[in-house]
Order: sequence, then C-alpha cells, then structure tokens
Amino acid sequence: MASEYGGMWKSLGMDLGAHDQLLAVLGQGYTDVFLSQANRPKGMDYFNFVMSEVHGLRIKEMLEAREQGEKIVGSYCVFVPEEIVRAAGATLVGLCSGADFAMEEVERVLPRNTCALIKSSFGFKLGKVCPYLESADMIVGENTCDGKKKSYEELNKLVSNLYVMDLPQTKSENARALLKAEFVRFARAVEELTGNPITVESLKKGIAITNAKRQAMHRLEALRKADPEPISGLDALLASQVSFYDAPVRFTESVNALCDELEERIKDNVAVFPEKTPRILMSGCPMAVPNWKLPWIVESSGAVIVGEESCVGERGLRNLTDDSGQDVESLMEAIVDRYFKIDCAIFTPNEDRADHIVQMAKDYKADGVIQYALNFCQPYQIEAMGLESRMEKEGIPMLRIETDYSPEDAEQLKTRVEAFVEMIG
Amino acid sequence: MASEYGGMWKSLGMDLGAHDQLLAVLGQGYTDVFLSQANRPKGMDYFNFVMSEVHGLRIKEMLEAREQGEKIVGSYCVFVPEEIVRAAGATLVGLCSGADFAMEEVERVLPRNTCALIKSSFGFKLGKVCPYLESADMIVGENTCDGKKKSYEELNKLVSNLYVMDLPQTKSENARALLKAEFVRFARAVEELTGNPITVESLKKGIAITNAKRQAMHRLEALRKADPEPISGLDALLASQVSFYDAPVRFTESVNALCDELEERIKDNVAVFPEKTPRILMSGCPMAVPNWKLPWIVESSGAVIVGEESCVGERGLRNLTDDSGQDVESLMEAIVDRYFKIDCAIFTPNEDRADHIVQMAKDYKADGVIQYALNFCQPYQIEAMGLESRMEKEGIPMLRIETDYSPEDAEQLKTRVEAFVEMIG
Repeated sequence: MASEYGGMWKSLGMDLGAHDQLLAVLGQGYTDVFLSQANRPKGMDYFNFVMSEVHGLRIKEMLEAREQGEKIVGSYCVFVPEEIVRAAGATLVGLCSGADFAMEEVERVLPRNTCALIKSSFGFKLGKVCPYLESADMIVGENTCDGKKKSYEELNKLVSNLYVMDLPQTKSENARALLKAEFVRFARAVEELTGNPITVESLKKGIAITNAKRQAMHRLEALRKADPEPISGLDALLASQVSFYDAPVRFTESVNALCDELEERIKDNVAVFPEKTPRILMSGCPMAVPNWKLPWIVESSGAVIVGEESCVGERGLRNLTDDSGQDVESLMEAIVDRYFKIDCAIFTPNEDRADHIVQMAKDYKADGVIQYALNFCQPYQIEAMGLESRMEKEGIPMLRIETDYSPEDAEQLKTRVEAFVEMIG
Repeated sequence: MASEYGGMWKSLGMDLGAHDQLLAVLGQGYTDVFLSQANRPKGMDYFNFVMSEVHGLRIKEMLEAREQGEKIVGSYCVFVPEEIVRAAGATLVGLCSGADFAMEEVERVLPRNTCALIKSSFGFKLGKVCPYLESADMIVGENTCDGKKKSYEELNKLVSNLYVMDLPQTKSENARALLKAEFVRFARAVEELTGNPITVESLKKGIAITNAKRQAMHRLEALRKADPEPISGLDALLASQVSFYDAPVRFTESVNALCDELEERIKDNVAVFPEKTPRILMSGCPMAVPNWKLPWIVESSGAVIVGEESCVGERGLRNLTDDSGQDVESLMEAIVDRYFKIDCAIFTPNEDRADHIVQMAKDYKADGVIQYALNFCQPYQIEAMGLESRMEKEGIPMLRIETDYSPEDAEQLKTRVEAFVEMIG
C-alpha cells in the first residue's frame, strides 16, 4: 500500500516510516485475528477490503471529495451528532485511538495513568500516523470523562482545528437544555465550516443516512440472536468499527448484503461455532480498531460473543432519530432526544445502562457478561463494581476485566476468560 | 477521650474499637508533625485544642445544637455553598477523607485505582469511624471529578441521606445557568431539611459569617508573605483544615487572634524558620485532615511552605461573596458569581488556575512550586503536565509529585523534595 499512497500520506504531513511500521503490524494483526477464522460469511470480504484500504483508498476518496468541497469532521465519541454533520454536507469519521503508538512521547504530555484510548489518540497525533486526523478540517472533542475532557486541553496545543463540545453529566432537565444548546452551537460551527446552511431537507437527509446505517446494524444484531451464531463476534464488532470510517450509504448496503447472507445461513443452519458454544455479551468501554485483544481471546477460548454493550456496538447505535419533524427546530429536538438517551457511564446515575445490559443478556441468550474496562477508566470501572451485585441478583454470571492495548497481559486474560467460559459452559 | 465520649459515639452507631485505633494514630501523628515544631505561635494552642477534640467536643456541641433544631449538612467539596446552609440555620461541616481506613472493605466497592481521598471517605463510612458523617442530617455529594461523581452512586447504597449536586464543566453561559439552577435547587432542599425559609436577612447573615471566615484567612495568608515566615506552612494549612469543621464565628475570632500575634512577630522579627529558607508554594489537590505527609516532608527538608493553591487553601477561600444585594434573587446571583469563579481542575479550559498559581508564586515570593496530585486524580494530574511548560516560561521551578495517603513512599518523596529544595535554595 505504501508505494501507491506514499505521496498522499506525505502531503498530509505523516511520518511515512513510522506509518509503514504501523500498517505492517495492523496487517499482521488482521490476518491473525480475522483471516484465520473458519467459516466466515462471504459478506465479510467487503470488510476485509475496507480494512486493507483503511488508511489508503478511503482517505483518497475522502480527499477527492474534499476537493469538491466536502469537509471532513473527525470525532472521538458517539455523542457527536452525525445527522448534523451530514446535513451540512460534511463527512464524519472516527479518529484513530485503538493502538499504542509513540508511547514515550505521549507520556511526556499525559500522565502514565491515562487510559489506553486517550493515550492512543495522542500517540497517533504525535507519531503522525493517523491520516484521518491529518485530513480532518475540524476535530471534535467532547467533555465526557475527565481523561478526555482534560486531555483536549493538551491536544489543543498540538492541533489548530479542535472544537470542544460540552456535555451534561446527568439526565435532568437542565442537562438536556445544555445538550440542546451545545448541539445548536455545533450546528452553527459545522455550517460555518462547510458554508452549507442546515435546512429541513438537509437535516432529513442527514437523519435518513444515519438511521439507515443504524437500521442495518440493528438487523445484523438481531441475526446474532440465532443459536448457533451465523457470524463471529469479531466479525460483527468489525462491522461496528468500520461504521465509524466508511462512506455511510455504501456501508449500509454492505451490512444489508451481509445480513441477507446471514439469513440464508440461519435457514441452512450454517454456523461459525458449534452448537452449545457458550454465549458471551461484551459490555463496557468502546473498542476502536485495531483493539481486538479481548474479543479474540474470548472467541479463541471456546466462547462466542453475541453482542456488544459498548459505544462501538449497541450503546452507540441502538436508538433511531425521529424524522417526522417538519422544521429544523423539531428535527433538532429529535436529534437531542436521541443522543440524550445514550447511557454512557459519564452520566450519574446511569441505571438505564444496567437495565440495558440485563435486557441484552436476555435478548441475545447470553450465558455470561464480560465487563470490559480500560485501565484508569474510572466511569466504567466504578460502574462495573456496582454492576456485580445487579448481575448477581439477575442470575447472570459476570467477569470483570481491566486491561489496556498492550499484549503483555494476554496470557493472564486468557486464563481468566477460559475459567469463566468453563464456568458458564 | 474515649471514656468521655464513648456513649455519644456509640449512639451514632460508630465502631468504638476501630475508632479508638484511629484516634490513637491521629493523636500520634499530630504530636509528631505539629507539636514537635519549634517556635510555634501561641495562637496555635487553640488549634491544638480543636484537633484534640475534633471527634469529641465539636461533635458534642453540634449534637447539642441539633437538639435545638440546628441541622447538620456534611460536604466533600468547596462547591457546596456555605452561605445557603448557614442562611437556613444549619451547620456545614467537611466530612472525613484524609486518611486510609478499612481499605480492604473499600476495594470491594470501589476500584483500587481510585484516588486516596475518595477511598478514604468510603473507608470512614465502612469502618464507622467518622462522627461527622454519622451525625449529618444531609450528606452533599457533587458531580466534580469522575471518581467522586461515580462513587456517589455507590455511597448512595451505604447512606440514606445523600443529596447530589450537579456541577458544570466549563465557564460558559450555559454552565453558569446550570450552577444557578443547582444552587436554587439546593436552597430548596436545605429549606426543606431545616424548615427554615431562606430570606434576605438570613442570606445576608449567612454571607456575613462565611465572608468573615474567609477574610480572617485572607489576613493569615497575607501575613505569610513576610520573609522570614512568622508561621509554618503546616500550621497555616491546619487553620484551613479546621475551617471545615469548626464553629465559624469562633474560628474567625481564633484566626484573627492568631493574626494579631503574627503581626507582632513580624514587627519583632520572630520567625519559625531561619532567614533565606527556600519558600515553596503548594499547588494541586486538597489536603484533608490528617493528610500532612507531603507538607511535613517539605518543612522537614529545609523549606517553608508559604501558600496553598488548593481547595484547602486559597482556591477554596479566596473570593468573597458580594453582600450588597437587597433581595434573595440578587444575593443568590452573587453567591453563584462567587462559586463560579472557583478554578477547580474539573473545568475545561482552566487557564485561570495557571494564572493564579503564577500570581501566588509572585505574591508569596515563592522560590518554587510543588504540584501535588493524588494518584489517579486525572484532572489535577493532567493539569500538572500542562503547567510544566507554563511555569518554565515564567521561570518558576516546579516539582510534580503524585502520591497517596500511605507512608510507603515517604522516603522516596523526601529524596525528591530535598533535591528540589537544594536546587531552588
């Protein structure tokens, strides 16, 4: 890939040598984790291709569209309202935060005790290896957890186009008013960036594109309720991960094509794991590309992952935006309503999330739940402690895992996961 | 003390055996750290007495007042508006959070990677050793950092009288509106608790009591600008710490009496440390009683602490509330104005704090600044990283310390502090 896109990456100011190393590791990881799987659906070929071109063709396509005036907005969080970005004719992409890079440099600007996701986002910037970040016309940060909120102050010293969105911490009326005001402010900022006014028509289009993507993912999720599973948890996670990068309409088509195939598979009783494979619900922190460590360990330990209660999964995708409003104001209200339901652990209290985990465990016929938290992610770590008693009451076995992106604890994690799988099997 | 107050503590549901142990350690610590100091002002006798009776006479007095209808409100944060509590005729006290206790039990409900202050507050509850907590009619939590915000969900399972105040994360107009709404809601809650309506007169009285306390502390702080210092940093910190517990009017008188003496000392050139002792400004996380580890290390390493940029120090005390309003609404606005200025690291951006540190370093003629953060306190840890370049630009030497309440790292800290003191001396 390097030779073909070298000029493009260079023009983005990237470090080609470092980037080549990253791509080599990423490619090897993808081969080991994904291509080694048995009995994958053919529909995953599309995702293999997307991943092989994740820093190449997709960037080229985005840059070409930018030549035609389509601005690029980068984000680190599912609270950034995609409907509004699309309404202004811009592209929304998730920014790299799933792998350790340039950690020595990172720890000169952030405390060592910062979660891997935040450190990673800084590593990609400091190491100059994220073409999404370097292509973005606007980078959106958000006041979610302390780590992100405070680290954006440091990121602001490294980039010139950071926009920070404030977010509420409760689900009170005042909190909703804050979210509304921030979404309105964001809409103005995106209009200014693109020069395109947000209208009823463009908002409806933005909502339609975004809802269609979510609906395709809902379809995929529903098919994972089948027993045996027609698709691995890793492949389904990959689809969620790719949803942050890919052109949305093409992505939607590809997921729907995959779902057509999975429906056939279910009819024909074609599965990726044997019957009675223990079914696990993953819950907790988001897993950005290429953070596949724990799912890989789970699915190579005799279990199948049937769902993700995560921002890269159902927490990020589950609610649709009501598109019935007939003016900008009511559509904006509908967007606020939709995002205000997100049960991120930054909210307090956050009982909805516990209820949702229980519901998912039932819907997906999970035999157990793995609560996954990144080290130093206090919101999800503390919720995981509280969830233990709730899951016990519900009779749902739960394993609490805290880890980061380093491979060092893989063996230890595997031992714990295997013991858990054996227990619930 | 045990025999005299045993019945009282028992009636509060405390664990007498555990509490005796705590008091023994606390008493020994106080003797080692405070009573061993040379050349202390006589005015510190009052604070010695207060500390010797911190769980005894002060609790007795509060409980007696409660018999007469004076409710007790406990708090963990300087954002809880004392003016409003006093206006409703209630007492505001800081709750225990300065020492490790019952850590094994704490780590069953909170992640190990939680800051010492939060763990301590849980330890005092789980160990049943905080008479303030057990006396409180209302415990106020606040959505400041992730650790506190999320841990209140767990505390809510341990106590029946927790009130959680939401707080903003920025200094925007919407953020101020949120603080205002939360202070109004809190005023209603305190009125309901006490049965006393908050009126212009009672608010003015609440503001007067609280401002007088702050003004006395400002006087004390101003006297610490003298070189050589008429009072140790430890003793001045103790006054700040006691301000959270003591009856406010008596406290104000005692600080003013101490200041009278310090003025005489300055006139007579009586000091606690030799001339040219290196002067250090402490900055960062709050130090609750009996968290004296780092100041003790500093002042036994040949330096004197001249100021605290901390919630237990100038950050908590520096601004007065305007008392000129003639109705409840304008007095409430003045209270909001005053608290909205607090430059806590939970805000983003928080440039005011950096400016304040530079200003304090100049005002107090500090030779260096120690940035103190509790382990896992992301807001202050991340700000400390960012402050390094600012302090370098200002030519102010800075040392970054991360620690907790355990004595284990004391030797290592002493080595680092001594090297810093030597460098700036």
